[in-house]
Amino acid sequence: MRIEYTLKKKDKNTEARHGSIKTNYGEYETPMFMPVGTKATVKGLSKEELAAVGRGIILANTYHLWLRPGEDVIDKCGGLHKFMNYEGPILTDCGGFQVFSLIQNKEKDITEEGAKFKSHLDGTELFLTPEKSIEIQNKLDSDIAMSFDECPPYPVTYDYMKQSVERTIRWAERGKKVHKNDHQALFGIVQGGEFTDLREYSAKETVKLDFDGYSIGGTSVGEPKDVMYKMIEDGVRYLPEDKTRYLMGVGDPIDIIEGVIRGIDIFDCVLPTRIARHGQAFTRTGKINLNNAKYITDMSKLDPECDCYTCQNYSKAYIRHLITTKEMLGGRLLSIHNIRFLIKLTEELRKAIDEDRVLEYREEFIKKYSKKSP
Amino acid sequence: MRIEYTLKKKDKNTEARHGSIKTNYGEYETPMFMPVGTKATVKGLSKEELAAVGRGIILANTYHLWLRPGEDVIDKCGGLHKFMNYEGPILTDCGGFQVFSLIQNKEKDITEEGAKFKSHLDGTELFLTPEKSIEIQNKLDSDIAMSFDECPPYPVTYDYMKQSVERTIRWAERGKKVHKNDHQALFGIVQGGEFTDLREYSAKETVKLDFDGYSIGGTSVGEPKDVMYKMIEDGVRYLPEDKTRYLMGVGDPIDIIEGVIRGIDIFDCVLPTRIARHGQAFTRTGKINLNNAKYITDMSKLDPECDCYTCQNYSKAYIRHLITTKEMLGGRLLSIHNIRFLIKLTEELRKAIDEDRVLEYREEFIKKYSKKSP
Repeated sequence: MRIEYTLKKKDKNTEARHGSIKTNYGEYETPMFMPVGTKATVKGLSKEELAAVGRGIILANTYHLWLRPGEDVIDKCGGLHKFMNYEGPILTDCGGFQVFSLIQNKEKDITEEGAKFKSHLDGTELFLTPEKSIEIQNKLDSDIAMSFDECPPYPVTYDYMKQSVERTIRWAERGKKVHKNDHQALFGIVQGGEFTDLREYSAKETVKLDFDGYSIGGTSVGEPKDVMYKMIEDGVRYLPEDKTRYLMGVGDPIDIIEGVIRGIDIFDCVLPTRIARHGQAFTRTGKINLNNAKYITDMSKLDPECDCYTCQNYSKAYIRHLITTKEMLGGRLLSIHNIRFLIKLTEELRKAIDEDRVLEYREEFIKKYSKKSP
Repeated sequence: MRIEYTLKKKDKNTEARHGSIKTNYGEYETPMFMPVGTKATVKGLSKEELAAVGRGIILANTYHLWLRPGEDVIDKCGGLHKFMNYEGPILTDCGGFQVFSLIQNKEKDITEEGAKFKSHLDGTELFLTPEKSIEIQNKLDSDIAMSFDECPPYPVTYDYMKQSVERTIRWAERGKKVHKNDHQALFGIVQGGEFTDLREYSAKETVKLDFDGYSIGGTSVGEPKDVMYKMIEDGVRYLPEDKTRYLMGVGDPIDIIEGVIRGIDIFDCVLPTRIARHGQAFTRTGKINLNNAKYITDMSKLDPECDCYTCQNYSKAYIRHLITTKEMLGGRLLSIHNIRFLIKLTEELRKAIDEDRVLEYREEFIKKYSKKSP
């Protein structure tokens, strides 16, 4: 099997939808937040901890695994699941976003053939093409692969974006042709920046290629929030109802709610684990920073409404101590909490969809979340 | 209650003894290896993982907790157990070893009153006395506190060591006088370096002060192995049979066996977690370094004889990948394995004592352990 999306219930006031995705490793409900395991490990969490926070699909990065340990190593070890000993669905990205975000402009050259650039690790010349990206992902043997795309920065000119979108569609077609892993789904990516007609063009042409799911790319690259929300609307509008819709790289709680309202099913982001390592935690009343001295003897939990392992066991005072003394348990406890926070948010959104009260949920959430931190 | 040692069985050929220690948090068998939780966390392990590797007592460092977050903070949070949310026995050291090991000679001044030195963190002037050490440990509220001692380097002159030993005994007496925590045991420390008569003097005088247990200090400070083993013999000889004997800072597998043979009950060391963070693992055939390229596609477990979580779940190839990409799960998996390795060693030693075959056990272990690494 590859992947199967079932729409279970639509919110009557918005585009929000409660669905489920059948994968090689079980069926999971959407909206869903996917924890990011950049280098074949979700930073700070074991597979048991991931299960406990309610994970569905997790994401691994093709670019990073291509560099280390290499797709042939993982292939020899029996694929990503065996390599990680992970019994759950894994999505791999295409590497395009890392070319955009990790490599400086003067170190990369994007042509019709693909992206030529220097490794962020050691400066080695690398060449990633649509075919190569799919070949790597085939070898990694993830459950969902992504088409290779260009992710331009914000803003670029209309002309640049038009050419980029047309090329990304040609790249999608090339990738699809070489995709050879019959238990791996392949998603197409809608680009087009903030240009409504280019988003329409990109979505329609990508859908014509008939992928197993679609993602909205090119958001969270520096654009204002209202532009991002419009990008989502402009892309989702043309996507088929019976396929999964994935908004890449989005993990801010309010952005997740806004994405769900616009019809998005799955999200991923490094935010919860990255801010954890810097001592920050999501709470219902906003983000808090555990480095703050006011927590030094605060024996209360991070968030009284949270059901995660961290909140069931540890106080702000102890976590603050671990963070300020750079003890690894600190980042781990905050990562568990922050990922659980986003997954719980999607669980609540599913319920709100079932009850046709997504707009009320958004209002209540934002009102509380914008309060002064405790 | 404070602490109660029960001797269950002595090996007929050596001084090795199988016993048990009753603590505020349950009864645990000896010989025992205590994982080190320097700053109120055993690096890399949660309390559930510590339970799974079979921990008994764990150790926390008075010096580090005195500096951060401070004993008053921990006191306000309800003591170390509440602060860490840890339901198991905790031993705190006295801080003397850190003055010896972390502070350069020119930055410290040891007088009859105590040790004046500069913080290794920020150079602040600090003054640790026998009374202060006990006062801090009382506030930390550990289950076992250690007397404040001087730990001289190796070698020092006979005269220096004689004066140091005499002072350490006076310090032990001063500390015992101010010890006010009636559910906290207090151990005395035998010093004396490599001088047999000073070890005898130190042991006898310390025992006269009637502590709840005794430790052999001043080993692993640069002396050759045979000197260290003699230091243990020279100290243990005069210790009462009905009290716990603790060899501080020893965690090399062979040294643990040699210590047990000489009558030691408990050990502690940062070695298993420290080498883990550098990519090294104990195995029955010797230490291996996961950074080694030969493990890149090695899907076998670290040690086929090991029953730990890491060996039940992960391969050398995956752990090598985590270590070389500096992913925190790597140090965690190796820490779990290495601590389990030493705890399993003590479990096997208990069995060997019951069967009067400690010497055979040593021979078999060393023969295998000195083999070429796999």
